[in-house]
Amino acid sequence: MKGATFQGVEKVSVVDVAKPSIHGADEVLIKVTLSAVCGSDLHAYHGRIPMAAGELLGHEFVGVVEEAGSGVKRFKPGDRVVASFYIACGHCTLCRKGWFNECENLATFGFGRVLGGLGGGQAEYIVVPMADQSMEPIPAGMTDEQAIFVGDILATGMFAAERAEIKPGDAVAVVGAGPVGLMATMCAQLFGPAHVFAIDMVDSRLEIAQELGGTPINSSRVNAIEAVEDQTGGIGADSSIEAVGVPSSIDTAMRCVRGGGTISMVGVPSELNGDFPYYMFWEKSLTFRCGRCNVQRYMRPLLDLIAAGRLHPEKIISHRMKLDDAEEAYRMFAAREATKIVLTP
Amino acid sequence: MKGATFQGVEKVSVVDVAKPSIHGADEVLIKVTLSAVCGSDLHAYHGRIPMAAGELLGHEFVGVVEEAGSGVKRFKPGDRVVASFYIACGHCTLCRKGWFNECENLATFGFGRVLGGLGGGQAEYIVVPMADQSMEPIPAGMTDEQAIFVGDILATGMFAAERAEIKPGDAVAVVGAGPVGLMATMCAQLFGPAHVFAIDMVDSRLEIAQELGGTPINSSRVNAIEAVEDQTGGIGADSSIEAVGVPSSIDTAMRCVRGGGTISMVGVPSELNGDFPYYMFWEKSLTFRCGRCNVQRYMRPLLDLIAAGRLHPEKIISHRMKLDDAEEAYRMFAAREATKIVLTP
Amino acid sequence: MKGATFQGVEKVSVVDVAKPSIHGADEVLIKVTLSAVCGSDLHAYHGRIPMAAGELLGHEFVGVVEEAGSGVKRFKPGDRVVASFYIACGHCTLCRKGWFNECENLATFGFGRVLGGLGGGQAEYIVVPMADQSMEPIPAGMTDEQAIFVGDILATGMFAAERAEIKPGDAVAVVGAGPVGLMATMCAQLFGPAHVFAIDMVDSRLEIAQELGGTPINSSRVNAIEAVEDQTGGIGADSSIEAVGVPSSIDTAMRCVRGGGTISMVGVPSELNGDFPYYMFWEKSLTFRCGRCNVQRYMRPLLDLIAAGRLHPEKIISHRMKLDDAEEAYRMFAAREATKIVLTP
Amino acid sequence: MKGATFQGVEKVSVVDVAKPSIHGADEVLIKVTLSAVCGSDLHAYHGRIPMAAGELLGHEFVGVVEEAGSGVKRFKPGDRVVASFYIACGHCTLCRKGWFNECENLATFGFGRVLGGLGGGQAEYIVVPMADQSMEPIPAGMTDEQAIFVGDILATGMFAAERAEIKPGDAVAVVGAGPVGLMATMCAQLFGPAHVFAIDMVDSRLEIAQELGGTPINSSRVNAIEAVEDQTGGIGADSSIEAVGVPSSIDTAMRCVRGGGTISMVGVPSELNGDFPYYMFWEKSLTFRCGRCNVQRYMRPLLDLIAAGRLHPEKIISHRMKLDDAEEAYRMFAAREATKIVLTP
Repeated sequence: MKGATFQGVEKVSVVDVAKPSIHGADEVLIKVTLSAVCGSDLHAYHGRIPMAAGELLGHEFVGVVEEAGSGVKRFKPGDRVVASFYIACGHCTLCRKGWFNECENLATFGFGRVLGGLGGGQAEYIVVPMADQSMEPIPAGMTDEQAIFVGDILATGMFAAERAEIKPGDAVAVVGAGPVGLMATMCAQLFGPAHVFAIDMVDSRLEIAQELGGTPINSSRVNAIEAVEDQTGGIGADSSIEAVGVPSSIDTAMRCVRGGGTISMVGVPSELNGDFPYYMFWEKSLTFRCGRCNVQRYMRPLLDLIAAGRLHPEKIISHRMKLDDAEEAYRMFAAREATKIVLTP
Repeated sequence: MKGATFQGVEKVSVVDVAKPSIHGADEVLIKVTLSAVCGSDLHAYHGRIPMAAGELLGHEFVGVVEEAGSGVKRFKPGDRVVASFYIACGHCTLCRKGWFNECENLATFGFGRVLGGLGGGQAEYIVVPMADQSMEPIPAGMTDEQAIFVGDILATGMFAAERAEIKPGDAVAVVGAGPVGLMATMCAQLFGPAHVFAIDMVDSRLEIAQELGGTPINSSRVNAIEAVEDQTGGIGADSSIEAVGVPSSIDTAMRCVRGGGTISMVGVPSELNGDFPYYMFWEKSLTFRCGRCNVQRYMRPLLDLIAAGRLHPEKIISHRMKLDDAEEAYRMFAAREATKIVLTP
Repeated sequence: MKGATFQGVEKVSVVDVAKPSIHGADEVLIKVTLSAVCGSDLHAYHGRIPMAAGELLGHEFVGVVEEAGSGVKRFKPGDRVVASFYIACGHCTLCRKGWFNECENLATFGFGRVLGGLGGGQAEYIVVPMADQSMEPIPAGMTDEQAIFVGDILATGMFAAERAEIKPGDAVAVVGAGPVGLMATMCAQLFGPAHVFAIDMVDSRLEIAQELGGTPINSSRVNAIEAVEDQTGGIGADSSIEAVGVPSSIDTAMRCVRGGGTISMVGVPSELNGDFPYYMFWEKSLTFRCGRCNVQRYMRPLLDLIAAGRLHPEKIISHRMKLDDAEEAYRMFAAREATKIVLTP
Repeated sequence: MKGATFQGVEKVSVVDVAKPSIHGADEVLIKVTLSAVCGSDLHAYHGRIPMAAGELLGHEFVGVVEEAGSGVKRFKPGDRVVASFYIACGHCTLCRKGWFNECENLATFGFGRVLGGLGGGQAEYIVVPMADQSMEPIPAGMTDEQAIFVGDILATGMFAAERAEIKPGDAVAVVGAGPVGLMATMCAQLFGPAHVFAIDMVDSRLEIAQELGGTPINSSRVNAIEAVEDQTGGIGADSSIEAVGVPSSIDTAMRCVRGGGTISMVGVPSELNGDFPYYMFWEKSLTFRCGRCNVQRYMRPLLDLIAAGRLHPEKIISHRMKLDDAEEAYRMFAAREATKIVLTP
C-alpha cells in the first residue's frame, strides 16, 4: 500500500510499504478514506520528535473497518469510524480514573517507535489496537471531513474549553486562531459564554474565528489585554484558552483574565521551562491548567454535536489534496500557506 | 398614579391609586416603563392566590430609578433597571447559603399582603426594597422588551436548565412550550446539548420553539416518549425540563429520560400531592428536581447574554398593549389568546 | 462443590452442585473465601424475585482467583479479589457514559436466570465474567471481612452519600440504620459534614450508628423531623439519605431537609408507585434521587479508604457462620435476629 | 486603649492610642477578647509591607460587640463574634460573583493605610465595617481559641483544600506543616481522602500534623517526592497543597502529583516571578492554583464543624501571652520559637 513516510528532517515521501494486518483480538484493520496534516506532525517533520527513516506519518484519520479481531465488540467490517490519535490501555490506574491521556501505556499513531510503534494514518490502511475504546462509529450522513477532527484537534478544543470552567454569561479569551484555537473557539460556546474573544495576529484566521462565533482581536494592531478589558467593563475575561505555546501568548492568556479566573492551555509549550508570575497568581487567585487532550472522553458527544449541526469543524479545512501529494502538503503546512490540509488516499 | 388592581375573581381594573414613596434606606422608587402579564398572575386572577380588592398586580417590570434611598450603593436616579419578581433579605441562613428563593423573609411583588405586601409592577410607579440585591442595571442599547424577562421567566428557564445537569452533546426534552418552556428551550442551549426537543400540543408554540433552536414534537399527534427515543437511538433523553405542572406532562418528563437522567421541573404543580413512580426511579437511578427560581443568581449573566445577542427572550412577545387595557390583557391571556403580553404605562 | 440454593419460598438448602468453569476469555474462576447474606437476598427468599429451585444464591463475596481466561489483564491465579454484585458490559451507551448500573446487558450474581443467569457467591466457587471491569484486587493486609462489602452495600452507601451533594459543614440525616444505612452513615462523613443524624427505631442499630460517627435519633421516641430541626437551628438538614424504602421513611427523609436540599434514596421501594409532595418540592426547591448503586465506580477508592483505616465496614458484622449453616442464616436474617451475617465455605 | 503598633522594621510596641468609634451605619465596635500573631504579620514586621510608625497591627481576632451601627442586621451588643481578616464591599463585579477575596475595594485589618486603613486587632477595641458580611457569631460553648482561626488561617486551609479538588479515596500531599499547612492538613480530610501526607523538615511540626490526621514525611531525611510515590503504588498524589511559598516547596508540590492532578498553593510567593515546568504540565495535564483566601465563604461551615467537634484548630496554639507582651511575641514568632501565639488584652 502507499503511505506518507518520514525520510529525514523536512523530508516526507509517499512510498510503497507492506499493508498492515491485525494480530491481537482487540485490533481492527481500517481502510483509510481521509487523513489530515496536524500541527504536531510538524514536530516530527522538523526533527523535534526523533523518527527513523521510513516510519509512517499521520494520526488524524477516518476510514472503513476492513477486518475486526475476535474480541472486538463494537465494530464490524463495513463500519465507518474515526479513531483517537492515541490508544490507552484502559487498565492502568490512571485509565481507570478516566485519565486516558495519562495512560502509562499510551501509544500514538504516526510517530514511529519512539511514541509507541503504531502505524500512520496518512496511508491506505492502518491497524487500530484497543478498537472498542479507541474508535467511534461515524453517524450516517456525516462526511469524513466533518468527522475527522473528533479524534484530535476538535477533542483538544473541547478539552481546553471544559478545563476553562466557563459558565453561562462568561467572557472567554482564546489566544491563537490556528486550527486548535479555532476548535476551542467553537467548543467554548458549548458552555454558554456571552463573549468568546479570538486573539491572533493574522486577519484571515480571525475571519474564520468570527465566522465560528468569536469576536476577533488582532493583537498586531491593538493591545489584546486592554482590548479584552475594554469589552468586559474593565474587569477582564472570566477565563482564557491558550492555543499557541509560546511565552508571549501564555503571557496574554494569563494577564487578560479577572481575579479568580482560569487559564486553560493546550498549546504545546515551546520550551521545557519558563517564567511564571507566581505573585500575580496569588493576588488574583488564578488557576492555570495545561494538558494533552483526553480524546476518548469527548469523541461521542462531539460526533453527536456535529450530527446535530451544532459544530462545524470542517470549516477550517483550507486545502484538499491527494495522499500522493503529501510531500507538498507538509511543505505548505510548514510554510503556513494552509490553515488545514486533508489528504485522500 | 394608575395601576392594574385585583377587584375580585377574574376582575381586573386600572384605577387611580396613591403613588408609592420610599421609606427605608435600601429602597428605590421606579418609574415603570414596561410590565408584563405572567402565568402566575393568573393564579391571582382566578382566585387561587387570595388577594384583597384594590391590591396592585404585576411582578414583571422594568423602569427608571426616580429616587434612591441613602443606603443604596449600586443605583442612582436615571438608571434603567430590571427587578427580580421577589425580594430576599440576604441575611437569613438560606440567603447566606445562596438560596435567595428560599429566603425566610421572601416577599413577592404584585400579590398583595398575602405574599409579602409589596406593590405591583403593572402601574406607573413601584418601590423596590433591598434594591442593591434585587435589581440589575439594563445595559446601554438594550430595549425594555429584551430586558424584562430577566426578572422572572427567563431566569426560571435558566434555573430549570442549570438544574437539568446538561452536558455538551446531551439530548434534552422540554415538556411544554408556553412562555417558561420557551425560555427553558433557549437556556438549555447554553449548556451545549446536541438536541433540545420541545414537546407541546400547539403548533404555533412549537414554531416559536423551533425558531429558538428546539426540535418540535407535537404530542397531540405522536407519542412524545417514543419520539424522543426514536431520535436518541432508543436510549431516551439525558435530561428533561417540565414547564407545565400537570400530571400528564410530569409523566412525559419522567419517562422520556434514560437511566441516570435528571428531570428538572419548574411548572407550578397543579396539585399539592400526586403519584410518583418510585420503583422506576430506583431501577433507572433518576433525579427529580422541582423549584421556584433563584432569580438573583441569574440576572447578571442573562443580561450579558442578551446584550451579546446570544439570547432573544423578546421573541415570545405576541401582544403589545397599554396599561389602560390591562383588563382586556388579562382576559386574553387567561383565554390563551396570547403567548405573552407586555403593557406600556 | 457445595452451594446455598433456593428451593422454594423461604427454603434455602446447601447442596452439592457442579463446580463452575470458565468459558469466555474475559472470565475468572474464584475460590470463594467469604460470602454474606444481604437484604436483597431476602427478596428471593420471600419469593418476590422469582427463582427456580436449585439456583445458587449470594452476590456479596470475596475469594482467590483460581483460573483466569486468556483475555484477563488485571488478575492472575492467587490474587485475592472482591467482585461487584453485578456485571456490566462496558460497551453499551450507558456504560460508556459511566452508568454501569444502568447497563442494558446488566446481570446480577445469585438470582438465577431471571436476573442474568450468573452463579451465586454463597458457594465454594464462582465464575466472574468481565473480570477486569467487575473486580478489584484486595490490598495486602486487608481481611476478607473488611473487603467484602465494597462490592455491594458499602458502595451503595457511597453512592447514596455522593448523590446527597453533601458539602463541608452540612447537616445530613440518614433514615434507617440497617446495613445500608450504617454504610451511608460512614460514607456521608467522607464529604465533611458537621452532623450526620442516624434515624431508626432500634436502639441497638443506633448504637452502631453512633460508634460509626452518627448522632442517633430514635424515631419511636421522638418526632425525627422536629429533632433534626432542633439540632440545626430550626432550618433542617441540608440533605438526607433514605435507606429503608417504605412510605414513612421516605416521608421523614423528604420533610427533614431545608429549602434547596437534596434527598438521596437507596432503599428499594416497597411499592412501584406512591404519593409524592410535588407542591412542597416546588416551594422548597428540593431534589430527589433514587437509584441502584454504580458499584464499579466506587470499589477502588473504597478499598483505599479501608486500607488507610478511614472506613470500618466490618463493624456491622454481627454473626459469623459456616456456609453449611446458610439455611439457619437466612432464617435469622429474615427474622431480624442479625444485623449482618457472613459465611465461610 | 492599648494596642500593638508598628514602630519601624522589627520594632513593635504596645502603646496607648485613641479608642476607635463607629461612623458608618454598617459598622460595629468590638471589644477584643483574643488576638493572634500571623505569618503575614511578619511581612509588616520585617518591613516588606510598608507601614507608618504608630499604625496598629493584627488581623486575627475575636471579641464581643460593644456597639452596632443602625444598619447592622445580624449583630447586637453582647454578641461574641469572629471577623474575617479583610472586608469586601459586596457590590463590585467580583464580589457579586462570590469572589470576595478579589473585591476591588478590599481592605485588610492591621496593615495601616497601605492595605486599606482599617484598625488592628492586637488591641483592646477595633471597628469592623460591613459587619453583616464580615463577621460570624461564635456558637454558644465555643471558646475564643477554637473560633479565632476561622477568620484567617483555618479558612485559608479550607480554601486550599477545596481548590485541590480532592475526591473520596484520594491521596493528598500538604507541603509545609506551619500554621497554614496544619490547617490544610485538617481541612483536606473534609473531602474524604485516604491519605494526607504532611511534608516538612521539622519533626515537632510533623508531630502535630500526625495528631491532626496527617502521615508525616520529613523531607530533611527522605526525598519527599519518592516517599509519596512509594506510598501511592508508584503513582503519586492525586493533588497537593503548597503552604510555604518558596521555590523548593513549590517544586515538591508540583512533582509529587500524578498525571491529571491538581496543585493548590496558598503559601505567599517569596518572589514575584519564578521558574515553571510548562512542558511537564502539558505532558501530565496538571492544574496549578494559587490564591488568597475567600474567607467570607468559609466562616459559617467552619464554625459549624468546630462546634460539632470535627475540627480542632486550637491544637496548633503553642503560646498564650498577654497583649502587653506583643513585642516579645513578635520576636519569638519571627525567630520560629513558636508555632502559633495568641494574645489576651
